Amino acid sequence: MSTTSEAKTRQDRFDHGLEILTRIDGEAGQKVVDSLAEISPELGHQVVAWAFGEIYDRPHLPPRDRQLVTLGMLTALGGCEPQLEVHINAALNVGLTPEEIVEALLHSAVYCGMPKALNATFVAKKVFGERDLLPAKTQ
Amino acid sequence: MSTTSEAKTRQDRFDHGLEILTRIDGEAGQKVVDSLAEISPELGHQVVAWAFGEIYDRPHLPPRDRQLVTLGMLTALGGCEPQLEVHINAALNVGLTPEEIVEALLHSAVYCGMPKALNATFVAKKVFGERDLLPAKTQ
Amino acid sequence: MSTTSEAKTRQDRFDHGLEILTRIDGEAGQKVVDSLAEISPELGHQVVAWAFGEIYDRPHLPPRDRQLVTLGMLTALGGCEPQLEVHINAALNVGLTPEEIVEALLHSAVYCGMPKALNATFVAKKVFGERDLLPAKTQ
Amino acid sequence: MSTTSEAKTRQDRFDHGLEILTRIDGEAGQKVVDSLAEISPELGHQVVAWAFGEIYDRPHLPPRDRQLVTLGMLTALGGCEPQLEVHINAALNVGLTPEEIVEALLHSAVYCGMPKALNATFVAKKVFGERDLLPAKTQ
Amino acid sequence: MSTTSEAKTRQDRFDHGLEILTRIDGEAGQKVVDSLAEISPELGHQVVAWAFGEIYDRPHLPPRDRQLVTLGMLTALGGCEPQLEVHINAALNVGLTPEEIVEALLHSAVYCGMPKALNATFVAKKVFGERDLLPAKTQ
Amino acid sequence: MSTTSEAKTRQDRFDHGLEILTRIDGEAGQKVVDSLAEISPELGHQVVAWAFGEIYDRPHLPPRDRQLVTLGMLTALGGCEPQLEVHINAALNVGLTPEEIVEALLHSAVYCGMPKALNATFVAKKVFGERDLLPAKTQ
Repeated sequence: MSTTSEAKTRQDRFDHGLEILTRIDGEAGQKVVDSLAEISPELGHQVVAWAFGEIYDRPHLPPRDRQLVTLGMLTALGGCEPQLEVHINAALNVGLTPEEIVEALLHSAVYCGMPKALNATFVAKKVFGERDLLPAKTQ
Repeated sequence: MSTTSEAKTRQDRFDHGLEILTRIDGEAGQKVVDSLAEISPELGHQVVAWAFGEIYDRPHLPPRDRQLVTLGMLTALGGCEPQLEVHINAALNVGLTPEEIVEALLHSAVYCGMPKALNATFVAKKVFGERDLLPAKTQ
Repeated sequence: MSTTSEAKTRQDRFDHGLEILTRIDGEAGQKVVDSLAEISPELGHQVVAWAFGEIYDRPHLPPRDRQLVTLGMLTALGGCEPQLEVHINAALNVGLTPEEIVEALLHSAVYCGMPKALNATFVAKKVFGERDLLPAKTQ
Repeated sequence: MSTTSEAKTRQDRFDHGLEILTRIDGEAGQKVVDSLAEISPELGHQVVAWAFGEIYDRPHLPPRDRQLVTLGMLTALGGCEPQLEVHINAALNVGLTPEEIVEALLHSAVYCGMPKALNATFVAKKVFGERDLLPAKTQ
Repeated sequence: MSTTSEAKTRQDRFDHGLEILTRIDGEAGQKVVDSLAEISPELGHQVVAWAFGEIYDRPHLPPRDRQLVTLGMLTALGGCEPQLEVHINAALNVGLTPEEIVEALLHSAVYCGMPKALNATFVAKKVFGERDLLPAKTQ
Repeated sequence: MSTTSEAKTRQDRFDHGLEILTRIDGEAGQKVVDSLAEISPELGHQVVAWAFGEIYDRPHLPPRDRQLVTLGMLTALGGCEPQLEVHINAALNVGLTPEEIVEALLHSAVYCGMPKALNATFVAKKVFGERDLLPAKTQ
C-alpha cells in the first residue's frame, strides 16, 4: 500500500494493481482486462488499479478472508455466475480448500435461500471439475 | 409432519423429505439431488430433508398455495431461471393450471417490473412447450 | 374487465380501479393515492387505474391467490416493508387466514433466506397486532 | 398522450403503444411481442399499451433521458441481460452515443459494484459488435 | 481529470474529489465523509477520491446525465433511501427539474415495479418538501 | 454435529441449536426467538434448530469464517440492517476484530457498490458505539 505522501501516476497504479490481480487470479484477471479492451478500457483500468491495487491490497484483511466475504456477496447478489467462477478460482488460489468453499456456499443457504446457494454451488462444481478437485461421487 | 416427541435419524428425515419432493417435483427433484452428489451432498440433503421434509410438508398451506408464493419469490429474486423451471413444473404437478401460472407471472409485472416478469414468462413458455401445454398462437 | 371494443376515458379507468382497490385494501389504498397527490399524482393514477383496474381485476386468478404471489414477491424483493404492511392487510381482507400468511412467510425462508423471512414476519406481527389477531403467546 | 376526456378502446391503446415502441426499439420491440404471443399475449399487450403507450410516451422526459434511467435500473437489477440488450439498442436509437453508454455503465460500478457493471458492459460489447460500433482495440 | 503521466499523492486525489463532491452535493457530501470519520475513514476517502474524484469527474457524461443513471440504480437496488435522499438533492443541484425527477421515478415503475417506484417517490416528496419544491396539492 | 444414526426429537434439535446460538450471539439470539413467539414460533424454531443447530454447527468452517461470509451476504442483500446488527455483534463475539469488520465492509464496496457498503458501515458504527469500540475520531 502506498504511503500518503507518495505520488503515483495512473500507470503506476495500474501496474501495482496488475501485480496483485495476477497473484490472486492468475491468468483469469488478465483475461477480464483483455475482454474489456475494446469496449471499456477504463472499466478494465479501474478493476485493476482501484479494486485490486487499492482495496484488495490493503493489509487489514488477508486474501483468504477477502475471498470468503466475496463468495458471500456474489452468491447473495445473484446473476453473477461469471464473477463467481473467477472468485472460486481465486479462493482456491489464496488457500481456501474445496471443502471450505463448499461449506461457505452451504452456509449461504441460510441467508440467501436455496436457489442462490444452488446456483453458486453449481459454479463451484464447474470450477472444481476443471481443476480436478471434485470430491468422490459418494458421500 | 412428525410429532414433537418422535425421535428421527438423519436418514429418516431424508427419506421423508424425498417422499414429499418426489410427489411434488417427480424426477426433477431427484435430478437436483443427483447433480449435487459430487460437489455438496450436504446441500442435497438439506434441500430434501429440510426444505421439503420439514417446511414444505407442513399442513398449514397446501402445495398449490406454496407454489404460488414460490413463483412470486423466484420471479422477484431474479437470476433463478433454473429453479423457476423446476417450480413451474411443480406448480403444474400440484394443480395450478397453465392459465393461472401465466396470470401469476403477469401479476408479477406490477410488483417486480416488466423485465423480471418477462424472464419468468419465457421460462413458463419453455416448460409449457416441453409439456405440450402452449395455448393457441392467437389470443 | 372491459371488452376489447369498449372505449374508456382516463377517468373511467381510474374510477374502475379505485373500486377494485377499495374492495381489496379498504382505506389503505386511498391513503397511498392521497400521499402521492402532491408529489406524483400520475403514479397514484397508475397504481389505481393500471395495477388495480387492469391487472388485479382480471378474472384468471382470484384475489386470494394474487395476494399469495404478492407476499412472496414483496418478501423476496426486500426493503418493501411499507408495501408488505398494505398487502398483509389486503391478504386478510381477501380471505387468507393469519395462519396461512404466517406459513407463507415461513415457506419464504427456504427460497429467500432467513433475514428476509424475518423482516416480513415482523411486519405481519405489526399488522396482526393492530387487528388484534396475534395468536396466543405460547405455541 | 391522450387527453383526460378522450375515450380509447383497448385496441387504440395498443396501436398507439406499438407506434412508440417501434420508433424506439425498431424491430426488437415487435419481436418481444411476437415471442409472447403463444404464452402470454396479455403481457405483450401491457408492454406495448401501458409501458410504451402510457408511460414512455409522456412528454416530461425525452427518450434519451429515459434510456439513461433504464440502463441504470437494468444494470442494478441484475439478471436482466436480455432486456439490457434491447435497451442498449434503444439507447443508440434515441441518440445516446456509444461513448455515453459505456460511461454510464462505468458510472454504475460506483453504485452497483464491479460485477454488475461488468455484466452490463459485456452486453454493450455484444450490441456494439453487432452494430459495428466497437471503438478501436487500443485505448 | 488527471493526465496519465501526472503523479498525484493520496491527498491530491482526495482534495480533487472533495471539490467535485462539494460542487454536486453541497454540504451533504461533506456530511457523509464526516459521519464515516470515526468508523471507516478509508471508505470516506474512497467515496471522495475514487467515486467523485475519478469516476464522476470524467468528462464523457455530464452530471445531469449521471444523476439520471444514479436515480435509476438507487431505485432499482432498493433499501438505499439514505443515498436516494442525497442523490435527489444532487439531481436538483445539477439541473434536473422536480418534474423530470418525478417522471424518472414514474418511469422506474415499468422496470422495477410499483413498490420500489413508490419508495423512491416518497423520498423525493421528503426532499422536495424540505426545499419547498412540492407542486400544488391538487392535480 | 449428530451422527447419521443418532435419533433426535424436535426438542433435542432445538436445545442443541440454542446452545450454539447462545454461544455465538449471546442474548441477541434468544431475543429474536422471543420476538417471534407470538407470531411465528415455527420460524423461531427453524432459526435455532436448523440454521444454528444444523448448519452453523458443522465443523467444516469455523465461526469466524462463517461470519465473514455472512457479513458479505447481508451487505449484498440490502435491507437487512436488523440482521447485520445481530451479525456484527456475532462477528465480534467469535473473534473478528473491529478493524477486520470495517475492512470487510470496505471490501464490499467493490462488489456491492458504495450505497450498500455505506449502509452496512453505519450499522457497524452503531454496534461499535454501543460496545465502546469506536476507533479514535481522527484517522
